[in-house]
Amino acid sequence: MGKQFLEITEKKEVEKIIADLSVKLANKIAAETEKVRINEALGRIASTSIFSPLDIPPFDRSTMDGYAVVAPDTFYSTEDNPSSLIIKGYIQAGEFPSHLHQYIEKGYCTGISTGAAIPKGANAVVKVENTFEFVMDVAVAKGVGKKGGGKKIKKVKIYKPVAPAENIMLAGADIKRGERIVTNETMLSPRETGVLAACGLKEVTVRKKSVVAIISTGNELVAHGEEKLKPGKIYDVNAQTISDSIRETGCGCVPLFLGIAEDSQEEISAKIKDSLAKGVDVIIVSGGTSAGVGDVLPTVIEELGEILVHGVDIKPGKPFILGMVQGKPVFGLPGNPTSALITFNLFVAPLLRTISCNYFYKGEEGRERRKSKKAKAAVRIFSEPGRNEYVLVNMVKMKPHEEENFFVYPILTGSGAITTLSKADGYIFVEKGEEIIEEGEMVEIELLTSMPTK
Amino acid sequence: MGKQFLEITEKKEVEKIIADLSVKLANKIAAETEKVRINEALGRIASTSIFSPLDIPPFDRSTMDGYAVVAPDTFYSTEDNPSSLIIKGYIQAGEFPSHLHQYIEKGYCTGISTGAAIPKGANAVVKVENTFEFVMDVAVAKGVGKKGGGKKIKKVKIYKPVAPAENIMLAGADIKRGERIVTNETMLSPRETGVLAACGLKEVTVRKKSVVAIISTGNELVAHGEEKLKPGKIYDVNAQTISDSIRETGCGCVPLFLGIAEDSQEEISAKIKDSLAKGVDVIIVSGGTSAGVGDVLPTVIEELGEILVHGVDIKPGKPFILGMVQGKPVFGLPGNPTSALITFNLFVAPLLRTISCNYFYKGEEGRERRKSKKAKAAVRIFSEPGRNEYVLVNMVKMKPHEEENFFVYPILTGSGAITTLSKADGYIFVEKGEEIIEEGEMVEIELLTSMPTK
Repeated sequence: MGKQFLEITEKKEVEKIIADLSVKLANKIAAETEKVRINEALGRIASTSIFSPLDIPPFDRSTMDGYAVVAPDTFYSTEDNPSSLIIKGYIQAGEFPSHLHQYIEKGYCTGISTGAAIPKGANAVVKVENTFEFVMDVAVAKGVGKKGGGKKIKKVKIYKPVAPAENIMLAGADIKRGERIVTNETMLSPRETGVLAACGLKEVTVRKKSVVAIISTGNELVAHGEEKLKPGKIYDVNAQTISDSIRETGCGCVPLFLGIAEDSQEEISAKIKDSLAKGVDVIIVSGGTSAGVGDVLPTVIEELGEILVHGVDIKPGKPFILGMVQGKPVFGLPGNPTSALITFNLFVAPLLRTISCNYFYKGEEGRERRKSKKAKAAVRIFSEPGRNEYVLVNMVKMKPHEEENFFVYPILTGSGAITTLSKADGYIFVEKGEEIIEEGEMVEIELLTSMPTK
Repeated sequence: MGKQFLEITEKKEVEKIIADLSVKLANKIAAETEKVRINEALGRIASTSIFSPLDIPPFDRSTMDGYAVVAPDTFYSTEDNPSSLIIKGYIQAGEFPSHLHQYIEKGYCTGISTGAAIPKGANAVVKVENTFEFVMDVAVAKGVGKKGGGKKIKKVKIYKPVAPAENIMLAGADIKRGERIVTNETMLSPRETGVLAACGLKEVTVRKKSVVAIISTGNELVAHGEEKLKPGKIYDVNAQTISDSIRETGCGCVPLFLGIAEDSQEEISAKIKDSLAKGVDVIIVSGGTSAGVGDVLPTVIEELGEILVHGVDIKPGKPFILGMVQGKPVFGLPGNPTSALITFNLFVAPLLRTISCNYFYKGEEGRERRKSKKAKAAVRIFSEPGRNEYVLVNMVKMKPHEEENFFVYPILTGSGAITTLSKADGYIFVEKGEEIIEEGEMVEIELLTSMPTK
């Protein structure tokens, strides 16, 4: 019933087409920005450099518990011959009461806590360890009366001199107003969000998240969670696995499920136009189990735009389609859930990572890649001659207490689409020409999803 | 002003206390569950085993495009001597029209698409490649008239025999109704959410997410995003970095910021009671820059519960506190943002990972750990003698095109809390006794956050 003639493109060629396309798209998408609150900025990418609107600390600030003094008052102080100052009051961190705006003159000081603002006139802090506080009669202090009677004052003995600015962090010493605190293109980690909070910022301008439209096609498909299945219908799987794979790979894109389309040109075309109207950045169409996508999607793409790839020399995944419609990539993935997941990992995820991530980090410093693992083939594994084949495997840990001791078994794909999805932990790539993997041989497994499952 | 006498506990002992506590808590917390929609189930941990409510496929289903037949009708068919059947209609995938409920008798068949339901009576499907469809006059077919006149019927020639059940996937062949599709304690990856969708489930019962209360203390602190700073005040940093570190480590816990408390027993005690009333699982209190937490928090914990650790033999992080109040751990972290982040990574994150993750995967198969990197010391690095010291470092990549070519420089901590936070990529652990790292020596860096930053 369906056309079976695809213009098969080599896997490497497809990867190159997608890599080039990704870079072009990334540059376009990077220009789109939005404002988010600092509380929601984690992992987002700053789209401008950010400068501090204030000095940090915003005022001269004590770095010790002690007494704020006029430094020369303490010069020549020793254990044997301390200087002695009148205490005007105490300043706790967070306080800035107006009576302390009074100038601290020579002969006076204030008690001060770590983090508190230095009063005017004072220019150093003596650590509490080098002082001794005491109470004295005012009359004695002024040298006009005797001890024991009348008003009292508080004084402090200073046993060690301090130089000007000692134990004070000057306003702006940590960060100067106008200083750059975040560079354009930085992915905001908890360190950056902390620095933004320190500067009192409310919002930050970041790159917009790319939106990926997801469309499932197939006359037999029903969205899960909907009412009971009518005869002949089955529940759609791909919308869920592809949406969750987008969320899981952490590529920072947002999946947008646009529903199920029947296998007709009109419906698929309408869904794609709907996606474009909604301003999505990428469109993923996955086929039903019928030949639908293989037939209808290329026709729709040719009508609306152009086809770049239709068919790749891999198994599963041969009917993979890539087209461009109004400057947006449209991916056509097979309907079989495991094949859809493999082609998503191979061709879609790298594009999503590039367009959504900080461009400078897309190398080894980039966001988490799909994970791979080494394991031993538990049995001889055969692949189809003359094909680039992805052999689905199930991993078994032989000795739970030793790391890196996994064995893999191939999955016999005859058993059904959902069982395969549930059993396959990943796949081994067997290149054309290489057809047998011997028992005990070490193989590299690309995991289908990066979360561990039993 | 503050007590300086802590009962210093060794780092290893603290880690052991926390590991034991984590396991106890994990078992308690695992018992709390909630229902979530399948669309929101990614990464959650199933708290029961889940069984399929239906057969998959739900009906006998064609695996090929072709004709549904009664198998014996095709026996002995060859290219030279095809059998010939009357076509009763066509069944597309997703259709189940009532006229097809008619029994397919010997001599009859229906056209059928891949994925469509097999009509009653039929028990095999002949691939379209092995057939030829044609039109015939009813009269000719019945052998009672001549070609060219009257009513027409559609017939198909069958060139190859099929055995019973050939090209049919029987109902339940993929998954049987009542079959276990997800095992209790499984972390739900896109594969599991896909299988749940395939079974049409709406909701799944998962472990509740643990909630972590975050309280900042310090009279001088103001929440960022609030109005302009009053004199003497600074913006709080720790609530942001700790909340985002909880989000970033992916430990699956939810941060809940409860605001800033003044450095008083009453306020801190009230915030802790408020947290407990809200049903949080863990409480993190971080100190202001004053000696506050060192003084007040232990007193509050002793009043409400008990202290397990007060002081660790590491620098920075010495004043670290761990207590238990009404069965919930209360962590006291230093006020300095970088020290808070280091102690969070060392002592809090491992507990959060254990209590929130699938217990069986907390080993090497567990969720992402804090990342470490190898690098070369760019200069001689000194640490304080007789201390377990975490030396903050800045990483510089020397040759952008070669991997694993990082150099580290120590950060001179004199420069200010926010600058340090912004510059320190991670820290090197220098154990007691080991005091100098030579230039060029390879060192292991624990990253402060796992996201790459410039």
